[in-house]
Amino acid sequence: MLNSPSWKYKICLAYDGTHYSGWQIQSNALAIQEILEKKLSVILRRKTKVFGASRTDSGVHALGQVAHFEHIEEIDLFRFLAAINGVLPKNIRVKNIEPVDMAFHARYCAVNKIYHYHLNLGYVQDPFTKLYSWHVPQKLDLDLLRECAALFVGTHDFTSFANEPLAGAVAKNPVRILTRLELVPEERGVRLEYEAKSFLYKMIRNITGALVEVALGKRKIQEIPEIFSARDRRKVGKTAPPQGLFLIKVDYS
Amino acid sequence: MLNSPSWKYKICLAYDGTHYSGWQIQSNALAIQEILEKKLSVILRRKTKVFGASRTDSGVHALGQVAHFEHIEEIDLFRFLAAINGVLPKNIRVKNIEPVDMAFHARYCAVNKIYHYHLNLGYVQDPFTKLYSWHVPQKLDLDLLRECAALFVGTHDFTSFANEPLAGAVAKNPVRILTRLELVPEERGVRLEYEAKSFLYKMIRNITGALVEVALGKRKIQEIPEIFSARDRRKVGKTAPPQGLFLIKVDYS
Repeated sequence: MLNSPSWKYKICLAYDGTHYSGWQIQSNALAIQEILEKKLSVILRRKTKVFGASRTDSGVHALGQVAHFEHIEEIDLFRFLAAINGVLPKNIRVKNIEPVDMAFHARYCAVNKIYHYHLNLGYVQDPFTKLYSWHVPQKLDLDLLRECAALFVGTHDFTSFANEPLAGAVAKNPVRILTRLELVPEERGVRLEYEAKSFLYKMIRNITGALVEVALGKRKIQEIPEIFSARDRRKVGKTAPPQGLFLIKVDYS
Repeated sequence: MLNSPSWKYKICLAYDGTHYSGWQIQSNALAIQEILEKKLSVILRRKTKVFGASRTDSGVHALGQVAHFEHIEEIDLFRFLAAINGVLPKNIRVKNIEPVDMAFHARYCAVNKIYHYHLNLGYVQDPFTKLYSWHVPQKLDLDLLRECAALFVGTHDFTSFANEPLAGAVAKNPVRILTRLELVPEERGVRLEYEAKSFLYKMIRNITGALVEVALGKRKIQEIPEIFSARDRRKVGKTAPPQGLFLIKVDYS
């Protein structure tokens, strides 16, 4: 098969999602995947498609998104990195590239994903984190937040905490295993560290929204098990805003 | 004296200096002091002048700039904070306000200032720190950098490491006491922590530039004492770029 791809590459990306419509190509706004495909096609002199591990939403950031693409010949990795970062906008960076087996798939082969959600708890919002955190100036009960977070860890039907995606099918199986959800103090507030093999659409932002409501005293912690059993998205309140969310890392076996 | 100011207030500010000409009012570009005076005059319904502790340059950031202003009547501190932050651009925030003695002066009463200079050492520049650090992807000898930094600590004539200010007089006395200069590792590189009662114009950025040149092997550490004795700015190389510099804290006795 002449000119059929026989090389596959895995790339790791960091991007500031502020001014993009998210990872996935949409009909009406600029997506990160789209920009990446356009620039890859220029660099590699061949129409190139990329597949991402996670379809991050509009305004969501990444420090460790993973994607793969195929190519018909071997790539000089060092030159590639300089070339692609030379043509990409500065708020999207390819951090590294490595050759992978043709069986590799950025999304389907992922065994673990880590997301961080940042809450800025200062009375006055910090000018440096406004695009990278949710500003919650009211007093949060962090012990209660931690206690409530523990209710989400483990295997659950997360239907009540998932939105229907605008594009693509609703997940057939709404059961997910949240392996870790930890509250970590940081300089200007706290972050929630989420870890799972996969998440439902907007699941992290809906859980974060519910946790903040409980920690603000707007909702009782006792309501959480009821919300789970209802299997109804309308039971959950406000979705946490996108700018606090970062895709940190995707692991493969 | 009717309507003469009898109240003085100290405010602490954070700002992202990216899009400003610096703290001080210039003839041709938008300064932070200017915006603050305009907004204060609106809120307080009276022409109000502010005096800052440090005249940060264009592109330099602050987490803890201090300024003072006078007013003819007592201010409701809680309402003031909400009002001023309601009218200021989001990249300038007043973090707190407190009444001070009429003898207080933000600049002349300062006894100590802390600045941090951030170096991003990743091979690929991080999209989140490009406006807040100096990207140095080449290999730095950090042990040498630390050794060289020690040469600057203490009482020195810093003439060779100072620029002539564009506005305002050259400092009469070029001797400064650098009480601390430490290299601290951080997530995406290192930061240099500078501490002194006062600094000469562009002194931190000139010292940082020299330290990086030594750590890159472009200049010998033995040249530093010679540069000090020359008392000549032309002996020093590149000034480190402004976006890595943050005014962290100003202390008063």
